[in-house]
Amino acid sequence: MTHFSTKRWALLIGCISLSIFACKPKNTGSAVGADAAAKAYVAPGQYDQFYNFVSGGFSGQMSVYGLPSGRLLRVIPVFSVDPEKGWGYSEETKAMLNTSHGMVPWDDLHHTEMSQTNGEIDGRWVFGNANNTPRVARIDLTTFRTAEIIELPNSAGNHSSPFITENTEYVVAGTRFSVPPDDANGDVAIDTYKDNFKGTISFISVDKNDGKMDLAFQIQCPGVNFDLSHAGKGKSNGWFFFSCYNTEKASTLLEVNASQRDKDFIMAVNWKKAEEYIKAGKGRKQAVKYASNRYDEKTHTATSQIKTEVLVLDAKNFKDICYFIPCPKSPHGCDVDPTGEYIVGSGKLAALVPVFSFDKIQNAIAAKDFIGEFDGLPVIKYESALHGELQKPGLGPLHTEFDGKGNAYTSFFVSSEVVKWNIKDLKVLDRAATYYSIGHLTIPGGDSKKPDPKYLIAYNKITKDRYLPTGPELSQSAQLFDISGDKMQLILDFPTIGEPHYAQAVRADLIKDKSLKIFKIDDNQHPYVAKGEGATKVVRENGKVHVYMTTIRSHLAPDNIEGIQQGEEVYFHITNLEQDWDVPHGFAIKGANNAELLIMPGETQTLKWVADRVGIYPFYCTDFCSALHQEMSGYLRVSPKGSAVPLRFSTGKTAPATK
Amino acid sequence: MTHFSTKRWALLIGCISLSIFACKPKNTGSAVGADAAAKAYVAPGQYDQFYNFVSGGFSGQMSVYGLPSGRLLRVIPVFSVDPEKGWGYSEETKAMLNTSHGMVPWDDLHHTEMSQTNGEIDGRWVFGNANNTPRVARIDLTTFRTAEIIELPNSAGNHSSPFITENTEYVVAGTRFSVPPDDANGDVAIDTYKDNFKGTISFISVDKNDGKMDLAFQIQCPGVNFDLSHAGKGKSNGWFFFSCYNTEKASTLLEVNASQRDKDFIMAVNWKKAEEYIKAGKGRKQAVKYASNRYDEKTHTATSQIKTEVLVLDAKNFKDICYFIPCPKSPHGCDVDPTGEYIVGSGKLAALVPVFSFDKIQNAIAAKDFIGEFDGLPVIKYESALHGELQKPGLGPLHTEFDGKGNAYTSFFVSSEVVKWNIKDLKVLDRAATYYSIGHLTIPGGDSKKPDPKYLIAYNKITKDRYLPTGPELSQSAQLFDISGDKMQLILDFPTIGEPHYAQAVRADLIKDKSLKIFKIDDNQHPYVAKGEGATKVVRENGKVHVYMTTIRSHLAPDNIEGIQQGEEVYFHITNLEQDWDVPHGFAIKGANNAELLIMPGETQTLKWVADRVGIYPFYCTDFCSALHQEMSGYLRVSPKGSAVPLRFSTGKTAPATK
Repeated sequence: MTHFSTKRWALLIGCISLSIFACKPKNTGSAVGADAAAKAYVAPGQYDQFYNFVSGGFSGQMSVYGLPSGRLLRVIPVFSVDPEKGWGYSEETKAMLNTSHGMVPWDDLHHTEMSQTNGEIDGRWVFGNANNTPRVARIDLTTFRTAEIIELPNSAGNHSSPFITENTEYVVAGTRFSVPPDDANGDVAIDTYKDNFKGTISFISVDKNDGKMDLAFQIQCPGVNFDLSHAGKGKSNGWFFFSCYNTEKASTLLEVNASQRDKDFIMAVNWKKAEEYIKAGKGRKQAVKYASNRYDEKTHTATSQIKTEVLVLDAKNFKDICYFIPCPKSPHGCDVDPTGEYIVGSGKLAALVPVFSFDKIQNAIAAKDFIGEFDGLPVIKYESALHGELQKPGLGPLHTEFDGKGNAYTSFFVSSEVVKWNIKDLKVLDRAATYYSIGHLTIPGGDSKKPDPKYLIAYNKITKDRYLPTGPELSQSAQLFDISGDKMQLILDFPTIGEPHYAQAVRADLIKDKSLKIFKIDDNQHPYVAKGEGATKVVRENGKVHVYMTTIRSHLAPDNIEGIQQGEEVYFHITNLEQDWDVPHGFAIKGANNAELLIMPGETQTLKWVADRVGIYPFYCTDFCSALHQEMSGYLRVSPKGSAVPLRFSTGKTAPATK
Repeated sequence: MTHFSTKRWALLIGCISLSIFACKPKNTGSAVGADAAAKAYVAPGQYDQFYNFVSGGFSGQMSVYGLPSGRLLRVIPVFSVDPEKGWGYSEETKAMLNTSHGMVPWDDLHHTEMSQTNGEIDGRWVFGNANNTPRVARIDLTTFRTAEIIELPNSAGNHSSPFITENTEYVVAGTRFSVPPDDANGDVAIDTYKDNFKGTISFISVDKNDGKMDLAFQIQCPGVNFDLSHAGKGKSNGWFFFSCYNTEKASTLLEVNASQRDKDFIMAVNWKKAEEYIKAGKGRKQAVKYASNRYDEKTHTATSQIKTEVLVLDAKNFKDICYFIPCPKSPHGCDVDPTGEYIVGSGKLAALVPVFSFDKIQNAIAAKDFIGEFDGLPVIKYESALHGELQKPGLGPLHTEFDGKGNAYTSFFVSSEVVKWNIKDLKVLDRAATYYSIGHLTIPGGDSKKPDPKYLIAYNKITKDRYLPTGPELSQSAQLFDISGDKMQLILDFPTIGEPHYAQAVRADLIKDKSLKIFKIDDNQHPYVAKGEGATKVVRENGKVHVYMTTIRSHLAPDNIEGIQQGEEVYFHITNLEQDWDVPHGFAIKGANNAELLIMPGETQTLKWVADRVGIYPFYCTDFCSALHQEMSGYLRVSPKGSAVPLRFSTGKTAPATK
């Protein structure tokens, strides 16, 4: 941190002692009520009340926690390979991680958003965004598996994503880093940023019936950094709101150079108007390259298609799509209340929190109450859009959620607290310390029209001494508050994996009864399925060996394979014949330069293996499945290249004499 | 499952209704006391009392839980790549996953064992075994990171590992699958198993001072399956005990063919005698290939060495090293009580649990009280070695732990329960249902001379309806019992990741105060370290570009890089200049076919990246580090191959005019 930036900032917010580093809250103890244990406790055999879908941040995955227990129910592999589940390693899943840059084994899943119908969470899908190599994923909440990943052209740092409209018509994705458009000459000097770098907002359509995503259109915007976003709802349905920072258009040392202006922007986007222009053929066809990857649960196989065109609207050619609203200062959260009337901008370097009024914004637009233009787009007068300001709320506001009862809850990173306040009269009602340095927060349904405000979860950025130490690296820390009363009550600390950013929570009833337990073997359309042991075989085709193998408690068939030659590629296609819930089988073979497979009942998955040397290779079931699991194994023999040993396979034929 | 095996087994254990599949315990409810919530609850800001080191099974990693809260404190990457932490992706860590088969990105970490001094857990290291491609890892408990991985030749399915001697002289590793020795002609028919397949026990020495592991020697044994193991202690120090199944030497359909004999074996190994033979030069030098990988925390870099020789003792040539003790039936656990006198064999298909006496075993050996030989090794008379049998204890015994007060606790997979019994008089004292189908269990210090019997944890194999459903795949489930009273009291269900098998737990005091918080930047000897921003640079050497970059809140230096040419390999060497606890920085660049880096304070880590196309590539810090984290980013420009754009870099030099 430079002297310059500290000084300017300290002056600006009138707080000499302020550090951009987290402060410890003054009350370093933990005021935990006597009833907290009972409130957080879920007795053995009892269900949690809520599912909590939490972004994994730099893990690239999505975590599912139960609330109020804070128990980790599942890690869903999304953008990163997962050797545990074979995600990105099995032949069937590799295509899910394909991009225009080739196979990418990692990303930074920043935010989660659940599908909605009429502005309420409907429990069908949850979306996640990849921040590094821009993509959006859709997870199916009957299988809790990633069903689809779509890449985004003209983008870098897909941060303000995957926020959705109130009937899940679109998932939106705003680029954090502006870059030269993909079809421009990108070989430009970085200090030509202001001339050559552009921002892009992507609109991904979602099919009502099956959820399939397509890149419907993009809007080219000024070269600022888009940070976060939310769709309007109710009266403001048809609009999207994006927080923008680096309106200075700095391209180096942003901690100083992107912290210059007293106000950056909220960008209001009339997406229904943009949609009209697209329908009217006003979109420009741009040549790009992006991957569209879909997982088919009938073939249990993913396919990846590289698409080559996108429709683009240049915002400055359509004066009625995008409007800027000044917002102090480097805003992060951009949150719309359940009524759709109030838009809260959280300027992370600001000493107040502005609340904008949708009605006032509409009036200002109608009256052209603009203070000028920014890169050809109208800038609405701050005071004309403003409902009011929450004064001296705390330091470092980041994100606001709502309880549907007229209250807002804002996280403050620097002063390390959650502040509850009334949206209409802008009065602070309560504040609770967080340990330490809260980033985002979640109230179940808190960004829908119908929040379910029993709990609030703080996802904190700093952990330090909250748990037993684990060396230099610590898990992130979340905190659960009971918000059913007037005052927030801290009831539980729970560590989280990866780095949780945005999260969603929903009452369990909406999901639990639709959860799929098995895949029906009869419906399995995998090209290499073996629907019974009679269909198992080992064949050599075009110089490759295909093993059609089945698993059932407690053997693999075939379990003796001979005639494989050194250097050959062997594809183990394993079908799990079980049709009972919670009876996966796994598969591994010694020396594999690959992961394992974890095959759900009724599913077929394929492990590619190269026989690297002559010898005997045991293989086995990796997932304890019965009392005879340890016996569930077999042997494969590799002979030298050109060997006369014939390809053969068997199960149980060489039963030894008993001693 | 075949009709044949069910029928035989049912007859054998006198239980017609027995299934090898798990039974639901009859009491399907949960008898949870009113005080359970308070017992399991750890209030916000309070520490757990115990660390619990749990194998990740098919995840390949090790998990660290806090007890009694059941909270996941950390996942330690061991045998599988971890895109979240860059493990296996950074240039520094790739060598840790090297094997004689090349880079292996996954394994099956089955068991954990903590280092001991005088038979008590000393909190220095925890070891883990790789079951698929045989390896043993050592984790340093000051850093909670994997410090070393050693591969094992002549092995397949390294299951009965990594058990240790009472002063951590050796980590032992018994092959689960017998295979032809590595220097034999491995191109043999699988049905020549009895002639050509051999078992191997490996002894890995551990340096007293720095923990460094070497493969001291191996013992070649009959071709059975070694399952689990434990070292003697106290009076039986100097001995190791291994459970053996498949003494039928079946090579196909083991669920039937390896379940034929009424008794298999415990193998007792006099390792001090074996050590004497090795010191006397009796070991045969065998040509093999195995990797020895070590991580150096001074250079923050791993190196891998392929070693080519091992000393082998053939057990049958030394009649006083290995002895077989008959043990009913397909024994799994092989557990030694805290006094070292009692060895409990848990035959998973047996209807009783035999307890052997070390004194009696010694007497039988002295008296040559043998019933014959098995593959040239003496077989001690069952009754002569036996202390007594625990009759009708439950169905499917797997594993036993001890409380140091004369009691044993055995897990029963099939009848899904834990049974507490008195070792001396072999009487059942208590039983508790588990949900469902417990595999292993842990009592803190339960396999040392000084257990700390406050809790018992059941690691269950079947989950089904214990938590909110998450589609076809469910997390595994653990259960925490308070065992401080006469009766076991269930107090908590907690889901676990991967598949926990063996686990260890220890009072937190032994570890927490030794935990390292940062790496000192002054001690950093990484060849590409930049110890301050003044040392940052970008250089082209031998056709590769090396970026010496630093991170500190809240910028990367340099943050503008130009002159990279399409197709070039770029190595980002990132040094985290922070010297505060819990301030890691991350690094990612758009389009990378690689993971991120997560760099601890004072550390240097390297990301390899290939510039795949012309354009502007943003890079950024992936781990939220300060209020200006979102500003912590930069740009890299890729020009066409042969471009005249010079290699240049800067930080803050192109500050824009403020608007």
